Amino acid sequence: MAKTNPGRFFEDYKLGDVIAHAVPRTVGEGERALYHALYPARHALYSSDEFARDCGLAESPLDDLAAFHVVFGKTVPDVSLNAVANLGYAEGKWLQPVYPGDTLRSVSEVIGLKQNSNGKSGVVYVRTRGMNQLGEVVLDYVRWVMVRKRDLDAPAPETVIPELKKVIPVEDLVIPEGLDFSNYDFTLAGEPHRWGDYEVGEKIDHVDGVTIEEAEHMMATRLWQNTAKVHFDATFRPDGQRLIYGGHVISMARALSFNGLANAQMIVGLNGGAHANPCFSGLTVKAWSEVLDKAETSAPGVGAIRLRLVATSGGEPFRLKGEDGKYLPEVLLDIDYWALMPM
Amino acid sequence: MAKTNPGRFFEDYKLGDVIAHAVPRTVGEGERALYHALYPARHALYSSDEFARDCGLAESPLDDLAAFHVVFGKTVPDVSLNAVANLGYAEGKWLQPVYPGDTLRSVSEVIGLKQNSNGKSGVVYVRTRGMNQLGEVVLDYVRWVMVRKRDLDAPAPETVIPELKKVIPVEDLVIPEGLDFSNYDFTLAGEPHRWGDYEVGEKIDHVDGVTIEEAEHMMATRLWQNTAKVHFDATFRPDGQRLIYGGHVISMARALSFNGLANAQMIVGLNGGAHANPCFSGLTVKAWSEVLDKAETSAPGVGAIRLRLVATSGGEPFRLKGEDGKYLPEVLLDIDYWALMPM
Amino acid sequence: MAKTNPGRFFEDYKLGDVIAHAVPRTVGEGERALYHALYPARHALYSSDEFARDCGLAESPLDDLAAFHVVFGKTVPDVSLNAVANLGYAEGKWLQPVYPGDTLRSVSEVIGLKQNSNGKSGVVYVRTRGMNQLGEVVLDYVRWVMVRKRDLDAPAPETVIPELKKVIPVEDLVIPEGLDFSNYDFTLAGEPHRWGDYEVGEKIDHVDGVTIEEAEHMMATRLWQNTAKVHFDATFRPDGQRLIYGGHVISMARALSFNGLANAQMIVGLNGGAHANPCFSGLTVKAWSEVLDKAETSAPGVGAIRLRLVATSGGEPFRLKGEDGKYLPEVLLDIDYWALMPM
Repeated sequence: MAKTNPGRFFEDYKLGDVIAHAVPRTVGEGERALYHALYPARHALYSSDEFARDCGLAESPLDDLAAFHVVFGKTVPDVSLNAVANLGYAEGKWLQPVYPGDTLRSVSEVIGLKQNSNGKSGVVYVRTRGMNQLGEVVLDYVRWVMVRKRDLDAPAPETVIPELKKVIPVEDLVIPEGLDFSNYDFTLAGEPHRWGDYEVGEKIDHVDGVTIEEAEHMMATRLWQNTAKVHFDATFRPDGQRLIYGGHVISMARALSFNGLANAQMIVGLNGGAHANPCFSGLTVKAWSEVLDKAETSAPGVGAIRLRLVATSGGEPFRLKGEDGKYLPEVLLDIDYWALMPM
Repeated sequence: MAKTNPGRFFEDYKLGDVIAHAVPRTVGEGERALYHALYPARHALYSSDEFARDCGLAESPLDDLAAFHVVFGKTVPDVSLNAVANLGYAEGKWLQPVYPGDTLRSVSEVIGLKQNSNGKSGVVYVRTRGMNQLGEVVLDYVRWVMVRKRDLDAPAPETVIPELKKVIPVEDLVIPEGLDFSNYDFTLAGEPHRWGDYEVGEKIDHVDGVTIEEAEHMMATRLWQNTAKVHFDATFRPDGQRLIYGGHVISMARALSFNGLANAQMIVGLNGGAHANPCFSGLTVKAWSEVLDKAETSAPGVGAIRLRLVATSGGEPFRLKGEDGKYLPEVLLDIDYWALMPM
Repeated sequence: MAKTNPGRFFEDYKLGDVIAHAVPRTVGEGERALYHALYPARHALYSSDEFARDCGLAESPLDDLAAFHVVFGKTVPDVSLNAVANLGYAEGKWLQPVYPGDTLRSVSEVIGLKQNSNGKSGVVYVRTRGMNQLGEVVLDYVRWVMVRKRDLDAPAPETVIPELKKVIPVEDLVIPEGLDFSNYDFTLAGEPHRWGDYEVGEKIDHVDGVTIEEAEHMMATRLWQNTAKVHFDATFRPDGQRLIYGGHVISMARALSFNGLANAQMIVGLNGGAHANPCFSGLTVKAWSEVLDKAETSAPGVGAIRLRLVATSGGEPFRLKGEDGKYLPEVLLDIDYWALMPM
């Protein structure tokens, strides 16, 4: 019995703990193809080696969200096996592209702790870094989760809530080395709209929808070696439903956003995000976006655009919260990210 | 709103228009493995690099139909987003194999237009060319679709119906450079039947069947970046069913035809084809073939065989049309193609 | 009609027959990624090229069970198309790792025959060898199946039952060349438990469960080019259910066993195995293991551990057979294998 991993409980986390997560993963052409089979992903930079080279990269990298999922998946056995809820993300930065053949691993540091007033659980803040085989950090983000206590009598730790930026300043974003959109081919990319064509406050209905299947979300979640029981075992929840990994919804919404944001090519920053309502098989996921901000960058022809991406299970687009300030029941996801776009 | 692609309507097509389709795609080992996971594909030339080399090729190419689907998928946002029906194919020629690492893109030319008598829609004929990263044409075919008009008052264009060959003459087929079946290994290929063993008029029941799942047809269709809503969004059609991409049925039937046609290795010509009835999840696809013609080629040991391939959702094999000349309800697909076979 | 493969019947097998199975298969990164998408596989040696190199291998090999499935799949059209039941396995040895780019084929020899007393069927014993493109044997195992007779009047063959080892002696196991666990990284591997921490008789509940989907088992089974109708055609069995390929259950159970046996890295011997009850879509597969034996090997830091792996469809762990000596209804699989583990 003692051989299996029971996961960590709230009282097992100490401020400053550094957790080296298990199971490094080499990613390659197979993961790229599966990403395209599982999501309607069409951003040209991630579809064509030729297009990526014409933008100054060595070849087409693994989708930024696939890199995120691989890094995130490794943290699950140590961070969220006993999590009640995944509460938020902040300060997510993609520091360099992940290419086929790279081997990723993850390390997390406990940067905040706060026991809940009920004494039964607490919030754990971790900063996770994903690294490649050269030890270079490819991704760095903060997430916080609510974790159950095993022993309700365990003393509460000193409350430490990290100061987190609401929005990553554009000057902190890392533009991939060599990225150059000066000769960007809008025809091949699929839409004529450049950075200058988007206005802050503009909202885009991405129109398309995908009805979610059990086999697909499980294949995706396994591919990232995320093993939380709740995604796979229909006997685990009283209602017999498998809760869909939130990252599946993020990737689905991002892929759907191609229709209207085909040129928001690379994700470089994750300012924040909330899984507003759980997603289950049989729902039809749709998406809309709002332009939150725009900024220039020092890379040739490359602008930054800050976007809110909302995934819903139907209903009218552009509806987010009710009069009570709570997310509407059809809202699945609300994330805030920075992408790079040709100017 | 204006940022999303509404698709083209009938009055948006002009004779001679050349449309460069978006989102080039690099194909590789991942696409090959997924093709084998999604279809019961066993033709040895597409399964083994060694076998392909023994037949004079550089390595095992991507399945000919996978190449077709990638090229076709790119045309969907520009050609068939508002299509009422995919009416037919003609003059399809595979001009060279697609290898892992190749990057494909597609260009279509409008070669025919005919407004329907009801004034609400029209037929658009396009010739599509798929090209690799060197600009070499790998596939060339004609298809015609019925497309709605947006503005019913838009004037009808001059009717131009292209002259299309009913059957590609064998001398127009392009045999892959170096292809040599002189030392073909029938044991490894799976069946002893050579070109000389098939007679014109012979019919083959492929016996096996596959029951279709939603997750599989969606993964396949996404892999080809075909984004027509009707395949993915269960809320789009009034009956709550997702219409299966016709190409999924083509690939399923072709893979099933291994049992009896294991040596019909490479597809080089598509003479015509009809999606006789829609396919939905839960149906069990079976297939039968009829030998329509045979011809010799100039390549060593290589014969050409012209085959009718019919996919059904059950019933007795070899039944195609009723007394009224219409396809029977269980017929899903009726295509006419040229394949290469060892003599 | 004569062109399709009817499969062999009992009277078609002769002692000493050598059957070269069809359709060689080149495996690569795509198969590796799909294996990770279809099973919750996390053993580090099969996930990371870096980890595999640190253990003395050239790179991360294809999962041992994926190699098994590819070799096994090729035998189906010749050995088990008319099989009533897959009765057992013995003397399975993995002789060298399979790497991306390798091309596999299979050859079987009939080593035993025994007609059943009812005269309607018989048991066929075959020794199957999987070979790579250099002709090197990568896998060697015996299985026996019950096969129907076509002609009930065909004379019974002389009964020959091969002598098979109940357990492969540890000195017969082949350790991959260069394998060295001296500097094994337990943190990256995911668990601290080494060979010395396991005791003979110890039982491990692997805790996690996966609810099985039709799309997933069909994709897996097709990927191994196993084409037995019963896995794909819902109209084939009177109950309308698709019987799941036994190998799918083996891979699922083995992947689940990571939780408690993360360091049982490589499978090198299959002593025996039984598919105790059929598995269908909708069941939730769980697994438990029992340590049956332990032995040292000559490779640096490498111990051998003999494990019983049991897959169930629920119920309490560690229950196997009833008072009648028969497998309990919830037991799906009972296999006995040798794995390599850091000492």
